[in-house]
Amino acid sequence: MGPEEIPDIVISRLPIYLRALTRLQTDGQEITSSKELGERLGISSAQIRKDLSHFGEFGKQGTGYEIKKLVDQLRRILKVEREWDIALVGAGAIGHALAHYNGFTDRGFRISMIFDNDPAIVGTRINGFEVRDVSRLSELIQQHNIALAMVAVPAESAQAVTDELVKAGVRGILNYAPINLSTPDNVHVQYIDPVVHLQRITYYV
Amino acid sequence: MGPEEIPDIVISRLPIYLRALTRLQTDGQEITSSKELGERLGISSAQIRKDLSHFGEFGKQGTGYEIKKLVDQLRRILKVEREWDIALVGAGAIGHALAHYNGFTDRGFRISMIFDNDPAIVGTRINGFEVRDVSRLSELIQQHNIALAMVAVPAESAQAVTDELVKAGVRGILNYAPINLSTPDNVHVQYIDPVVHLQRITYYV
Repeated sequence: MGPEEIPDIVISRLPIYLRALTRLQTDGQEITSSKELGERLGISSAQIRKDLSHFGEFGKQGTGYEIKKLVDQLRRILKVEREWDIALVGAGAIGHALAHYNGFTDRGFRISMIFDNDPAIVGTRINGFEVRDVSRLSELIQQHNIALAMVAVPAESAQAVTDELVKAGVRGILNYAPINLSTPDNVHVQYIDPVVHLQRITYYV
Repeated sequence: MGPEEIPDIVISRLPIYLRALTRLQTDGQEITSSKELGERLGISSAQIRKDLSHFGEFGKQGTGYEIKKLVDQLRRILKVEREWDIALVGAGAIGHALAHYNGFTDRGFRISMIFDNDPAIVGTRINGFEVRDVSRLSELIQQHNIALAMVAVPAESAQAVTDELVKAGVRGILNYAPINLSTPDNVHVQYIDPVVHLQRITYYV
């Protein structure tokens, strides 16, 4: 089965599995089961087995999953057995938090460049990164062949920044601005908006 | 049809519709169509009509949706026609960004309290909020009858903080710590982890 045929909902759970498995690994555990994983994640063990079966045979009936093997395989599937450079656009409060976030390490990503348009902060450093002028965005992204970006600019500027990122060759964008972005089909966008998540919570509360 | 029967995937799209509609409203538009919304959101117009049909008749064939009516109705469905108080736990980089985030206003939420365990910052102010000692978490949340919390503490402390929030009566949690939380069934948790989103992007890139 080609990767094109795996439903997006399955793909969306793989990073969650990888995160939980990596945690078990850090705790020194070597074997786990769909039951144990399911209890940790609030997902049924049948669902987990079905999801993973899309990618081949991981576990043996009765003996569970070898964590290291499954981690390595999930990393390959998600293409994070390597480390991706990310351009961060926007050095406001969210940009600052991302520049200081230590959760990227060992999970496949590192911020390699930060851009802003505010003359007062261009040239300063955030957690060791020099803030570059956004006017050099296209030039620097192409020069360093950066494929991923995080957009943490105000809603008003997000589409213009996105258009420039796409023109520079970026193929994946994590967008923190609270608007939907238009991109060509081959550019993948994910959204982080705390209010969207909070509204999903209040519906159920 | 009771709200219990609406699939979670439909609910998850309602905040996206609300956000896009509010934006159209701000731009002065009064009427929209499932086609226009769909183009803005990269969702098929048939899907949008089907999603909204779960909640009654919004649009008239051929005349489109009255934006104000639809916005009001979505706010009621998502229970954000009121403003919810949120307790923010953790005043590190992410907590700072959240405390400065101006995207909550008019969307149903306001941070009303910030907690941390670091004596160096307890008592200081972030964007006008006094940082309270986390030892007073339970007392203050009960006293102010706060139902929602955002957890922005290190992974190691997130479950303990969550347990305390649940005991204090919190019924919805937005978790920024990169671990899955165990909570009783009546407490709703949503997760924000940039790496999980980035890995969903790299799968497709």
